[in-house]
Amino acid sequence: MITNPHPIPFNQPFLAGKEFEYMESAIRKEKKLSGNGHFTRLCQQFFEEKYGFGKCFLSTSCTDALEMAALLLDIQPGDEVIIPSYTFVSSANSFALRGAKIRFVDSKSDFPGMDESKVEALINERTKAIVAVHYGGVPCAMDILQNLSKKHGIPLIEDAAQAIDSFFEGKALGSFGDLAAFSFHETKNIHCGEGGMLVVNNPNLVKRAEVIWEKGTDRAALFRGEIDKYGWKDLGSSFLLSELQAAYLFAQLENLKIIQFRRKMIWEDYAAWFSGRQDQIQVLPIPYLKSLEDSIKDLGKVETQTQPGNHHVFYLLFETLEYRQECIRRLKEKGILAVFHYQSLHKSEYIQKHQPEEYFRDLPNSDRFTDCLLRLPLFYELPDLTK
Amino acid sequence: MITNPHPIPFNQPFLAGKEFEYMESAIRKEKKLSGNGHFTRLCQQFFEEKYGFGKCFLSTSCTDALEMAALLLDIQPGDEVIIPSYTFVSSANSFALRGAKIRFVDSKSDFPGMDESKVEALINERTKAIVAVHYGGVPCAMDILQNLSKKHGIPLIEDAAQAIDSFFEGKALGSFGDLAAFSFHETKNIHCGEGGMLVVNNPNLVKRAEVIWEKGTDRAALFRGEIDKYGWKDLGSSFLLSELQAAYLFAQLENLKIIQFRRKMIWEDYAAWFSGRQDQIQVLPIPYLKSLEDSIKDLGKVETQTQPGNHHVFYLLFETLEYRQECIRRLKEKGILAVFHYQSLHKSEYIQKHQPEEYFRDLPNSDRFTDCLLRLPLFYELPDLTK
Ligand SMILES: Cc1ncc(COP(=O)(O)O)c(/C=N/[C@@H]2[C@H](O)[C@@H](O)[C@@H](OP(=O)(O)OP(=O)(O)OC[C@H]3O[C@@H](n4cc(C)c(=O)[nH]c4=O)C[C@@H]3O)O[C@@H]2C)c1O
Ligand SMILES: Cc1ncc(COP(=O)(O)O)c(/C=N/[C@@H]2[C@H](O)[C@@H](O)[C@@H](OP(=O)(O)OP(=O)(O)OC[C@H]3O[C@@H](n4cc(C)c(=O)[nH]c4=O)C[C@@H]3O)O[C@@H]2C)c1O
Repeated sequence: MITNPHPIPFNQPFLAGKEFEYMESAIRKEKKLSGNGHFTRLCQQFFEEKYGFGKCFLSTSCTDALEMAALLLDIQPGDEVIIPSYTFVSSANSFALRGAKIRFVDSKSDFPGMDESKVEALINERTKAIVAVHYGGVPCAMDILQNLSKKHGIPLIEDAAQAIDSFFEGKALGSFGDLAAFSFHETKNIHCGEGGMLVVNNPNLVKRAEVIWEKGTDRAALFRGEIDKYGWKDLGSSFLLSELQAAYLFAQLENLKIIQFRRKMIWEDYAAWFSGRQDQIQVLPIPYLKSLEDSIKDLGKVETQTQPGNHHVFYLLFETLEYRQECIRRLKEKGILAVFHYQSLHKSEYIQKHQPEEYFRDLPNSDRFTDCLLRLPLFYELPDLTK
Repeated sequence: MITNPHPIPFNQPFLAGKEFEYMESAIRKEKKLSGNGHFTRLCQQFFEEKYGFGKCFLSTSCTDALEMAALLLDIQPGDEVIIPSYTFVSSANSFALRGAKIRFVDSKSDFPGMDESKVEALINERTKAIVAVHYGGVPCAMDILQNLSKKHGIPLIEDAAQAIDSFFEGKALGSFGDLAAFSFHETKNIHCGEGGMLVVNNPNLVKRAEVIWEKGTDRAALFRGEIDKYGWKDLGSSFLLSELQAAYLFAQLENLKIIQFRRKMIWEDYAAWFSGRQDQIQVLPIPYLKSLEDSIKDLGKVETQTQPGNHHVFYLLFETLEYRQECIRRLKEKGILAVFHYQSLHKSEYIQKHQPEEYFRDLPNSDRFTDCLLRLPLFYELPDLTK
C-alpha cells in the first residue's frame, strides 16, 4: 500500500465497453438525445427482467428518483418520514422538499446501516413513509421492514443508491419496497456521470409515476399514439435521463459482471491485506455483514448472482476521529486519497434550524461512523495498492 | 415543399463540432463525469463573458433551473406567480411544486408571446414573481416588465428556455431578470439532449443558489478547499448537469455562430417561400416581430450579434383549428412532420382541479394560438424543403 508512486484518487469514472459506440448510435441511428427513447427502454428492461423489478423509470439522479417517490406518495407539510441519520443528504432532503419532518433512526452499533429494531418506536399517525437505506450496498433486514410496513400500512421506500446487484435472502434489493431509488452517479458501481432510476413495485402507483416523470403531463401517452395532444395533469418535473447518458449506462450494464468481479477482487485484496495488520496500523476493520474472515471465506462460495452486498465500499473504522484524520493525512502523503463519508443528518444545520428540538435525540452510532469511518479508493481501474 | 421523398422529422439532434472529442476528454483527461467540473465551468464562463450574465449554473433541464428559481425566491403555499398561459407546462409547474397559485396572462393578439400590458392588473400583495417567457426566442418588452418589477418590488424571472443568443435593445435575453432559465433540450438551438442553466443576475441570490444547486449542501465550498467537510444547509436537489453533457454542450457553444447562421438560412427560405403563397395554401404567416417583409429585409442588416429573435421557431397561423389539422395531415402525407405547440395552461386539467374558478378567466389569444399555430421543421441538418 506504500509503494505506488502515482497519486491515487478516491474514485474515477471509467469506460467498460461500448459507451461511445452507443452514444454515437443514439445520435446517428436513433436520432434522439432527449429522454425516454431507445436506450432508456433498454436500461429499464434490463432491470425489470434481470431483477424482477416493477416498472422502472430512469431519472437524472437518485435524488430526483426520491423526489418522484415523495410526489407519488403525496407527502404533505407536517407528514413524517423515517430515515437513517447516517446517509446522504438527498435521502432526507427529497422529503423535506415536500414539507415533511424527518424522524431519524440510529445506525447499528457494529455497522453504519440503520438499526431496524429502532424503527417501530418512531411510527405515529403522521408517518407517511419508511426509507430503508442499504449502506454500501449491504442489505437492510428487509423482512423486518416489510413486516412493519404491512402492520402499520406505511409505504416502504428503498434508497438503493449504492445497492445495484445486491440481494437479501436471494431477492434483489430494489424489489422489496413499494418504491426504490438507484443512483448511477460517477461514484457508483455502474455509472453514467449523473443518473438514477425509480422502481415502482406497487402497481397502483405506476400510471401516476409516468405522468410525474414526464413533467406532470401525459406526454408519454402521446408518443405511444394513445392520445392526440398532451397537457398538464399533475405535479411533476423533467425527470428524464438524456439518451446520451442512457446509452452510456446501457454499455455499463452489459458489462455489469466484469465490473462487479473487478470490485470484488479489489475488495478482497484489501480485506486480506488488513486482516493481518490490525495492530500495526491501529485500525479496526469492520465486518462486511459477517466477520472479516468468514466473509472472505464465504465470498468464494456464495453464488455471485444473489450475494448480499456488492463491494461498493471498503471501509475501516478507527477508534477516534483523531486517528482517522491522521490516517487520511498519512495516506495523502503517499498519494492515496481516502475519504470519510456521511455526516449525521440529525445534527445538520438544516435540521437544527427547521425541526423542533424533540428531533435532536442522541444517535451515538451514527455520530461514531461520522467521525471514525474511512473509505479506501475502490474503482474499476484502480491499480493494485496492496502489492 | 412537396418534392422531398424522405420523411422529415420536426426536429433532430445534431453534432456541430468536437462533441465526442470533449466527452472523451472529460473521461480520460479530466477524469470526471459527475457535475460541476471542467466543462461545466467552461460553459458557464462562456455565457457569463459573452452575454454579461450574472453567475451561471448548468442544470439538468430548464425545468430544474426554474425549480431552483422557485426555491431561491422562497415561494410558499398561497403565494402567486404571474405567468403566460401559452407556454410550456414547466414554466408554471416549477412554481406549483412550491405551492404557488398561478395568475395567467394572455398572449398578444398578433403574437404568441405574453401581453405585457396585462400584467399589472394581476399584481396583488401575494404576488411573489413575474415570469417573462420569450416565446420562440422573441423578446418580451423587458423595459415594461423591469419597470413593473421595480415599481412593485416583485422579482422578475426570465423563462429563456428558447431564447439563447437573442437580444432586446442590444442587451442579451437572460440578463434582465433577477433570475433567468435556459434550456438545452434536444429541441433547442443549442442542445445536449436534456439540459438547462440558471442565471443569477441578482448578486444577493448567488451564494444560496450554489447551495441549492449542490443538493442543499456546501459541497462546492469543500471542493474549492474552503472548508474541510460539507453538510446539509438548505433545501436543494441534484441540479448538476453531468460533465458528459457539459462537454457535449461546450462543443455546441463553440459552434454557436454557424448553428445560428444555418437556422437563419432555413428560416429565411421558409419566409420567402410563404410570402408569395398565402392565398394558395390558406395560411397566414405571422410577422416575426415586424411584418414578414420588413423582417426579411432587416435580417440582412441587423447585426447578428444583437438581433431580437434567434430563429428558434418558424410558425404559421391558420384561421381555424380544422385548417391547421388539415395542413398537418397533408404535410404528413408528404413525409413532413409539422406540429402545433403549447396548450393554454389555464385550461389544463391540473389548473381546473387545483385552482379556484376565479383563475379560469377567458384568455382568447392564448386559446387561438393553441388551436391555430403550426410549427415547421427547423433544425441544423434540415434539408432544403423549399426547392
Ligand atoms: C418556454 C419553456 N419553458 C421551459 C421549458 C422546459 O425546458 P426543459 O425541457 O429544458 O426542462 C420549455 C421546453 N419545452 C420543450 C419544447 O419547447 C416543447 O415543444 C416540448 O417539446 P416536445 O419534445 O414535447 O415535443 P414537440 O416536438 O414540441 O411536440 C411534440 C408533439 O406534442 C404536441 N404537444 C406539444 C406541447 C408542447 C404540448 O404542450 N402539448 C402537445 O400536445 C405537439 C406535437 O404533436 O417540450 C420541450 C421540453 C419551454 O418551451
Ligand atoms: C444513500 C444515498 N442516497 C441518495 C444519493 C443521491 O444519489 P444521486 O447523486 O444519484 O442523486 C446518494 C449519493 N451519494 C453520493 C456518494 O455516495 C456520496 O459519497 C457523495 O459523493 P461526493 O462526490 O460528494 O464525494 P465523496 O467522494 O463521497 O466525498 C468527497 C469528500 O466529501 C466529504 N463529505 C462527503 C459526504 C457524503 C458528506 O456528506 N460530507 C462530506 O464532507 C468526504 C470527502 O472528503 O455524494 C454522492 C452524490 C447516496 O449515497
